[in-house]
Amino acid sequence: MATPRISAAFFCPRLSKPAATQHSTKRMKPSTIKLALIQQTAIQPDATNPTAMLDVQMSACREAAKAGCHLALLQELHNGPYFCQQEDPGLFDLAEPIPGPTSERLGQLAAELEMVIVASVFERRAAGLYHNTAVVLDADGRLAGTYRKMHIPDDPGFYEKFYFTPGDQDPARGLGLIPVDTAVGRLGVLVCWDQWFPEAARLMALAGAELLLYPTAIGWDPTDDAAEQQRQREAWITVQRGHAIANGLPLAACNRVGLESDPSRATAGIRFWGSSFICGPQGEILAQANVTEPETLIVELDLARAEQVRRIWPFLRDRRIDAYGDLLRRYRD
Amino acid sequence: MATPRISAAFFCPRLSKPAATQHSTKRMKPSTIKLALIQQTAIQPDATNPTAMLDVQMSACREAAKAGCHLALLQELHNGPYFCQQEDPGLFDLAEPIPGPTSERLGQLAAELEMVIVASVFERRAAGLYHNTAVVLDADGRLAGTYRKMHIPDDPGFYEKFYFTPGDQDPARGLGLIPVDTAVGRLGVLVCWDQWFPEAARLMALAGAELLLYPTAIGWDPTDDAAEQQRQREAWITVQRGHAIANGLPLAACNRVGLESDPSRATAGIRFWGSSFICGPQGEILAQANVTEPETLIVELDLARAEQVRRIWPFLRDRRIDAYGDLLRRYRD
Repeated sequence: MATPRISAAFFCPRLSKPAATQHSTKRMKPSTIKLALIQQTAIQPDATNPTAMLDVQMSACREAAKAGCHLALLQELHNGPYFCQQEDPGLFDLAEPIPGPTSERLGQLAAELEMVIVASVFERRAAGLYHNTAVVLDADGRLAGTYRKMHIPDDPGFYEKFYFTPGDQDPARGLGLIPVDTAVGRLGVLVCWDQWFPEAARLMALAGAELLLYPTAIGWDPTDDAAEQQRQREAWITVQRGHAIANGLPLAACNRVGLESDPSRATAGIRFWGSSFICGPQGEILAQANVTEPETLIVELDLARAEQVRRIWPFLRDRRIDAYGDLLRRYRD
Repeated sequence: MATPRISAAFFCPRLSKPAATQHSTKRMKPSTIKLALIQQTAIQPDATNPTAMLDVQMSACREAAKAGCHLALLQELHNGPYFCQQEDPGLFDLAEPIPGPTSERLGQLAAELEMVIVASVFERRAAGLYHNTAVVLDADGRLAGTYRKMHIPDDPGFYEKFYFTPGDQDPARGLGLIPVDTAVGRLGVLVCWDQWFPEAARLMALAGAELLLYPTAIGWDPTDDAAEQQRQREAWITVQRGHAIANGLPLAACNRVGLESDPSRATAGIRFWGSSFICGPQGEILAQANVTEPETLIVELDLARAEQVRRIWPFLRDRRIDAYGDLLRRYRD
């Protein structure tokens, strides 16, 4: 395996029209945070070390903490290969409860490093009931919250509807499209396919999220031509930058990287395109990882900037909530 | 005034995975259309020719028809300078009824050229009740429909809340966020500030729009620095490409171009940034106009491609309409 690269960008832009006054906020939390995205290739499971891939993620978190990071975001289902390329009931053995082995190990690490860690677990909730779940470990090691993927894809090579029950929407019980409060701020954690749905990002913003985070596993079908591959990767980046803009929020997406073959040999596998990135509240790219190799991407992010951007572009002021009723319909036919 | 440039792009991409079968559609309409965006600079009103700027737009439409176009999109409030840089009750004199002089002239032109024209009118609905209204003239000259801007901005230099009442949402009476059927397809016509709201684009898509169209007037504050100007223009393009992607639809935005001074001299005016563009249903830019000069941008667009893109990325299948209720709230506090 290639040695992971570490790339850092330091970015603290100011709008040319400064806010009139800096009001104090209720919570004592930093307005500038250093964020790390851990982009990795898959490691095949090995009986001698079944947690080899989690170990790699944890090492990368330690490196990020040494570099001064306050928050680390891991890729989707980071504990092993992307297993949804085939439908195999035996693979439900990979699932684990929450709290469970992964969340506990990462919680200990978060406490040790005093760093918030956003991770991704194949969750066993009950027999026959499994979720694709993000776990948020706070800087004191506590499980600050979870988010069960709400939008589940299913297309050739990504048979997720077989494995994952869509998350419940039940905010009164802390479930669904609601952000998680942590030491570094209120995090709007979503997962992969959610990234194509403006509704998900908007609901997080309306609930006060200060940063949108997406653990992701997306890549190319190697049989697609280069032009189609380029359109797909560019669309993936663009639609998420659009959510940042529409909501005046910074956004980070952490993706897998590298080719993972299809165990069923039905397809040519998936070439995960990396390209993990962080953008600011005007959708401006602050840093972006490469398309072929593991990389830890580090950015210093000014969470207070969103306030200034939203004063210039006050979209939340002008939403026509009286006119949006049909968003709750499948189709307006 | 500079001679308008005419730029043409011919683009008919195919996804690498062709749709299995081409089903016949109910309506007899072309799947490939040639679309013209008429990007213009303002002309100051002149007593000897009060419709000089409309005349320029109409000449450009004639040129586009000669080039084989089936549809022309004009910029926002194209009949004169962007008058909302100051609040002046006398400027309500600029408004006109619909049907009225502009829609009638454009209707005659549409019939003569057998071309659909999407235009933008300062509408007088009643004394003290004015709208910023798009008019859609069908290829037979008939007024196929109107759309009254639903999201109204208001910030220094863009005092639109003074002039424009937000459009009603009343689909049963043909009002609000609903598309317009024409000879070239079902058009999701929105206006300028609407372009920042994913809700508006989504509602048009859910109502069967085949193409999203935005007459626009957006530009730079000349006192902003270059980095901020670049972020703003890029954000404007990106958020709209995001709507195209999220809805699997092509999209076109036609913007003003050139500096318009502030009659009140309170500001340095607005430098409209042109950059009119057309993108496909994966958000891929098909053609883009320049940032300083008038230009007619012509693209050949395959409306049938959206069907193929939506088969690969079936976002409409996976929307969580059970979880979107809070989109109808101002804020989730």
